[in-house]
Amino acid sequence: MIAPPLTDFSRLCVHTITTKPWSIEQAASHYSAAGVRGVTVWRQWLEGRNIAAVRRLLADNGLTVVSLCRGGFFPSVDAAARQTAIDDNLRAIDEAAELGAPLLVLVCGADPRQPLVVSRQQIADGIRAVVDHARASGVKLGIEPLHPMYADTRSAINTLRQANDMCDALSDPQLGVVVDVYHLWWDPELMDQILRCGRARRLLAFHVSDWRTPTEDLLNDRGLMGEGCIPLRQIRGWVEEQGFDGFIEVEIFSNRYWATDQQDFLEKIKRAYLEHV
Amino acid sequence: MIAPPLTDFSRLCVHTITTKPWSIEQAASHYSAAGVRGVTVWRQWLEGRNIAAVRRLLADNGLTVVSLCRGGFFPSVDAAARQTAIDDNLRAIDEAAELGAPLLVLVCGADPRQPLVVSRQQIADGIRAVVDHARASGVKLGIEPLHPMYADTRSAINTLRQANDMCDALSDPQLGVVVDVYHLWWDPELMDQILRCGRARRLLAFHVSDWRTPTEDLLNDRGLMGEGCIPLRQIRGWVEEQGFDGFIEVEIFSNRYWATDQQDFLEKIKRAYLEHV
Repeated sequence: MIAPPLTDFSRLCVHTITTKPWSIEQAASHYSAAGVRGVTVWRQWLEGRNIAAVRRLLADNGLTVVSLCRGGFFPSVDAAARQTAIDDNLRAIDEAAELGAPLLVLVCGADPRQPLVVSRQQIADGIRAVVDHARASGVKLGIEPLHPMYADTRSAINTLRQANDMCDALSDPQLGVVVDVYHLWWDPELMDQILRCGRARRLLAFHVSDWRTPTEDLLNDRGLMGEGCIPLRQIRGWVEEQGFDGFIEVEIFSNRYWATDQQDFLEKIKRAYLEHV
Repeated sequence: MIAPPLTDFSRLCVHTITTKPWSIEQAASHYSAAGVRGVTVWRQWLEGRNIAAVRRLLADNGLTVVSLCRGGFFPSVDAAARQTAIDDNLRAIDEAAELGAPLLVLVCGADPRQPLVVSRQQIADGIRAVVDHARASGVKLGIEPLHPMYADTRSAINTLRQANDMCDALSDPQLGVVVDVYHLWWDPELMDQILRCGRARRLLAFHVSDWRTPTEDLLNDRGLMGEGCIPLRQIRGWVEEQGFDGFIEVEIFSNRYWATDQQDFLEKIKRAYLEHV
């Protein structure tokens, strides 16, 4: 089923990195003024800040904290680095709890110096090492499969099937998955794996942007919704058929948009949200 | 099984695009002098040439023509463009036959203006429209699944599973697949799908290069073997366990190497071939 158009902004969430030039204060007031209702905070926006104060700032601006980005990056050929990553994920869980974020998004990591199967094992080990702390803190962990073009350094989990398989293997209700259309749109199994995700009640978050033609930068050339070839309403239809009614998160890394006026960009996001998501 | 190192150049094939600055005459004489035994010719190198003369030139230099690159690009929202593509593939088959190439490599195509499922159907239709001519011409057709980062415009076939599925669906012995490590290395199903490929006797060609970290250009930043994270001997082991003993084709698109002395680059390829493939 193709989802019907969205008619208001009650489910619109923006990632702080989408409007990278803005501080957390600027993001809070501009998002709020624009009628955005949710925010996903990237950890850089918390650096050197009092997290309880940020939490109040966001609440005072009527913003719901949807998730904290990002934990993960578990694999390394170096055992000490793997322990450092685990420690950092424990801190990220603390930050999420303090911020009132119900979810920590995991960009699982990969180390090009070792086989992907080894990185995948280290991801499973890393998650096992932190999941009890997540449960005790009331924070869910969401595995975000990343596009295969990031398999060298960012994630050895590159399809929704793999994320589902890992959730099955770890079998912990504190663990779920994050569906990001940018990473997954090309996958012929996407519908089936979203179904599987839904049946297992583990679909925790939904990220949108678009795939530009041509894409000129592997990291920072994501498109605004409607600028590319991702079938957004089709994928949202699959996600919502599984009962997902949470926030729809706009996560755009774009050198091109970061160089423009961010208030204008935010208005473009709102128009694109109604017209294309 | 990890393949044992190669000890000579009897199976080394180079794609003319790997040494892009060289004309077909330069490629023929330099490859030959370097002890390269196979060549895959890209169609641009035939433009405006007498193909029978090119065939003699390559034979006189002791070079076996491994394949012609590339046909495909079947999908389009425009029906006239689809017919143009079919006509062009029929010409490519003629060129392959005239050149003495036993294989035409298919980069299947995609059109970002339509859903991937539609592009996939048009690929199947396109192959059906040309496969009898390929059989009559003694030319095999090889579906080359391309990395998912090319799903917008270059190929709607992005995994070896999809290529195998399409071969099963079309069920024509004239059709097979091309395994290129650059496109497929990240896939957790790669070993299983190479097995499936082998059992069906449809593994027609094997392309090597490497995935650089960081990759700075989506198209033209492939690495020399050994410069990246692709487990070349592992994948070659899987391919050879299936009985594949054909040429090992070096296909590197690299702005960085094209800007260097090509004879020096060819020597680097030979060293990398023995050390890393």
